[in-house]
Amino acid sequence: MKELNRLQPSATEWTVDLNSDLGESFGHYVMGQDEAILHHVTSANIACGFHGGDHNVMRRTVRLAVEQGVALGAHPGLPDLLGFGRRSMAVEPEDVFNMTVYQVGALQSFAALEGKRLQHVKPHGALYNMAGKEPAVAQAIAEAVAAVDKGLILFGLAGSQLVKAGEKAGLRVAREVFADRTVQADGSLTPRNRPGACIEDPEQAVRRVVRMVKEGKVTAVDGTEVDIEADTVCVHGDDPRALAFAKGLRKGLEEQGIRVRRIGER
Amino acid sequence: MKELNRLQPSATEWTVDLNSDLGESFGHYVMGQDEAILHHVTSANIACGFHGGDHNVMRRTVRLAVEQGVALGAHPGLPDLLGFGRRSMAVEPEDVFNMTVYQVGALQSFAALEGKRLQHVKPHGALYNMAGKEPAVAQAIAEAVAAVDKGLILFGLAGSQLVKAGEKAGLRVAREVFADRTVQADGSLTPRNRPGACIEDPEQAVRRVVRMVKEGKVTAVDGTEVDIEADTVCVHGDDPRALAFAKGLRKGLEEQGIRVRRIGER
Amino acid sequence: MKELNRLQPSATEWTVDLNSDLGESFGHYVMGQDEAILHHVTSANIACGFHGGDHNVMRRTVRLAVEQGVALGAHPGLPDLLGFGRRSMAVEPEDVFNMTVYQVGALQSFAALEGKRLQHVKPHGALYNMAGKEPAVAQAIAEAVAAVDKGLILFGLAGSQLVKAGEKAGLRVAREVFADRTVQADGSLTPRNRPGACIEDPEQAVRRVVRMVKEGKVTAVDGTEVDIEADTVCVHGDDPRALAFAKGLRKGLEEQGIRVRRIGER
Amino acid sequence: MKELNRLQPSATEWTVDLNSDLGESFGHYVMGQDEAILHHVTSANIACGFHGGDHNVMRRTVRLAVEQGVALGAHPGLPDLLGFGRRSMAVEPEDVFNMTVYQVGALQSFAALEGKRLQHVKPHGALYNMAGKEPAVAQAIAEAVAAVDKGLILFGLAGSQLVKAGEKAGLRVAREVFADRTVQADGSLTPRNRPGACIEDPEQAVRRVVRMVKEGKVTAVDGTEVDIEADTVCVHGDDPRALAFAKGLRKGLEEQGIRVRRIGER
Repeated sequence: MKELNRLQPSATEWTVDLNSDLGESFGHYVMGQDEAILHHVTSANIACGFHGGDHNVMRRTVRLAVEQGVALGAHPGLPDLLGFGRRSMAVEPEDVFNMTVYQVGALQSFAALEGKRLQHVKPHGALYNMAGKEPAVAQAIAEAVAAVDKGLILFGLAGSQLVKAGEKAGLRVAREVFADRTVQADGSLTPRNRPGACIEDPEQAVRRVVRMVKEGKVTAVDGTEVDIEADTVCVHGDDPRALAFAKGLRKGLEEQGIRVRRIGER
Repeated sequence: MKELNRLQPSATEWTVDLNSDLGESFGHYVMGQDEAILHHVTSANIACGFHGGDHNVMRRTVRLAVEQGVALGAHPGLPDLLGFGRRSMAVEPEDVFNMTVYQVGALQSFAALEGKRLQHVKPHGALYNMAGKEPAVAQAIAEAVAAVDKGLILFGLAGSQLVKAGEKAGLRVAREVFADRTVQADGSLTPRNRPGACIEDPEQAVRRVVRMVKEGKVTAVDGTEVDIEADTVCVHGDDPRALAFAKGLRKGLEEQGIRVRRIGER
Repeated sequence: MKELNRLQPSATEWTVDLNSDLGESFGHYVMGQDEAILHHVTSANIACGFHGGDHNVMRRTVRLAVEQGVALGAHPGLPDLLGFGRRSMAVEPEDVFNMTVYQVGALQSFAALEGKRLQHVKPHGALYNMAGKEPAVAQAIAEAVAAVDKGLILFGLAGSQLVKAGEKAGLRVAREVFADRTVQADGSLTPRNRPGACIEDPEQAVRRVVRMVKEGKVTAVDGTEVDIEADTVCVHGDDPRALAFAKGLRKGLEEQGIRVRRIGER
Repeated sequence: MKELNRLQPSATEWTVDLNSDLGESFGHYVMGQDEAILHHVTSANIACGFHGGDHNVMRRTVRLAVEQGVALGAHPGLPDLLGFGRRSMAVEPEDVFNMTVYQVGALQSFAALEGKRLQHVKPHGALYNMAGKEPAVAQAIAEAVAAVDKGLILFGLAGSQLVKAGEKAGLRVAREVFADRTVQADGSLTPRNRPGACIEDPEQAVRRVVRMVKEGKVTAVDGTEVDIEADTVCVHGDDPRALAFAKGLRKGLEEQGIRVRRIGER
């Protein structure tokens, strides 16, 4: 973030947060490699039972994260287990507000069992995408988070409506970038179905993230230089290859003098 | 309760709490007459989205209760919307613990939006019945409630395992009786399918509750005198007749010198 | 329909079908006045457990409809009980195909128990609206219906993509109009939030439906004369007022010489 | 089965069916190795969307099974996705009847898309176990299956109430045994939590199944000789080890002169 990194006159260190979506298993259905990915990230976005996760998975995931010293965050989603929260739905802002309050509240309870507080909230899937573009959805989420706890940090795509809404609601926000995705000239993610949308080489990913953190710049697919602020980097841990990518990313960042630490750490 | 009512040397007034199950609508499905019944009770048991209720209904119900000065309580149930949480299920104690933490946490969040704290927790339907008889289920609920907030009052059937488990977990407990149900010689409720299980005459109900509160006694269906402690009385508000019953009960109790007030009021 | 009504040179009688959405209760949640409305309609659109309804409700509703001589139809919806299937969702055509096959198949089974076959399929809520406008969704539904049973009649809004897709799939289609809604110059329904969207006077509704059936014309909100084919008229039965409307509509149509009969009757 | 195997005077070949539970993935959640196990079994029990599976998974699984020449069966379960249908619930027989009709009907529809009919029905998890012991549950399932299609074969644990209820309902039944589980002196499965409940050596499993098929006998954990009829053998395919077991079992049976073929083949 601006204050902590690039513009601080006396900045002696660069920092960034690595976050991952976790606790998305449901009942007997296992998803992700939570224990393994927790070794590489600093912030855990924990599903809250709507798009994935359930009360038992939440308990286990909160404990695992606490054991690994990873910061706890809520990862609220649309009420669509079948679609894993990835299908946009015509939801009213008031509904979004309430579903956010509900899910964050439920996870807070599990955090409290371990003597912890939540660090952040990051919406999931379609809710994240809708909040990135639709001001009413973004505002509903930001206001819900602020209503539940003014101290929560709101994660949103760098440059998105969600980041704006979070700032307007008086929240501290974390601008999120994706290590394995390219951006377009306007700063938005290149849609997955376009060529060049994904970055599969960890070294290239490291170079890009390093530049985003240190210079606040990224090169878009068309060659344009785009200003970008990177407070937290999303990494996936679904399969062995994703895990290796996450591990390589962390190592690469640290070798480049960037300290990887939880966003809420001052 | 013992300390507040019958045995206090200087007791100058009898008191009792009236509670009702509320917020059990779901999406477009309406259940109950919440606004009306809130005029007659002092404690609201609010469904938390598992057996009934949803995040939007919870928000509305919490607001309605606060407007009426009715104390807020969580009403967690089994994850069985189709069966309205009334079907017993083979759930592990750890699962019960976690589902209680989840649901109470979610409702806490809505209470906090209104600047309130929850007063109590009362399990719903099959979970209430299972907790009344199975020590492991009772203990899981009591420990979950205590883990979430030591200040919460646990509602359980007078004489049940749930009351015992609550006391053991260090919680303040409220022994619940039913205005419209008779008991057997061992103090348990007469099953609904037996003759004489229900009391339909409000005046008879008032007489019974008055005696339970003032004397700690009730006459079982077979004529046995049974010791019973009545801290809170469950009333229904599903239909106009239930509403009239609730209204009549409250009036009758007050005429008999029993102050109807929320259990958490000292 | 054209062939049966207006254009048959020897047509001695006008006919129309009245349909209603039924079986939308769920578990302990009651919705609608199914028994009462079944006295006034000729085709029942029975919910199949996705947006509303469940296996027990389906059994009861099929039986009630059969007892009243009302034709059976499937009323498949989006998998969104919380939103009652009224929220549009980003669903893939293949998903729509499969959810239609599933729901129609489940209802067929209950019809077969009573020795009946389904007459028709009418999508519900957001699925109906999406199918009216999006050719891919319309095609997915039409092809699913045709794949399950070529003899099923597909209900779609008069003039919509769904009607076109049904014809293309080789199905018999029923063009649906709404007794209590006005149309715009392009034949589409006036959105509910605009003034003049709804018709509350049963006599006015009768006059409009009579004209649609006999002349194939309706006057839009802006005064334009619009061509419309009315094979079946949707009526609601949610409350006493809707019931009275349905009763009045049927009586009025019959007084005007229009025979109300199930669409599948030849 | 008696008629086909052991007691036929002119029996020149022994036969048995191998079945496996399939199509239990849900949305983005993957369960089992369906494609691989389909190479080793002759009957597929396909989940129907209640305990697992969904309409998209059903479509894919039916197609895969048809491609492999594996017979199609419905695998209805309790409405408990969270518990994967493995938790017993207090369900009314009428509810069981209706949930069976619903699920079998839905799967029939997908079978018909491929020009096939269902061969059999095998209840899942807790429903299977309840139906094995509780006559009312067994009867509800058997009557539902018979009501949907008299030609369906009902799978039930050898010696269980479900087999009896199937016969009483006039259905052809298949008595199921488990290749990897031991039995007690009364023929019931040794509970999983007891020592010696499971058989991990494929060769031992082959020897036991061969004896059950050819001699109608199995040795219980306490050494008792138990009469048992084995029409179909359940095999698992959840992981590489289970797959190897299934492959070894099939090979071993065939080497012992037992033809492995679908139960419905005459």
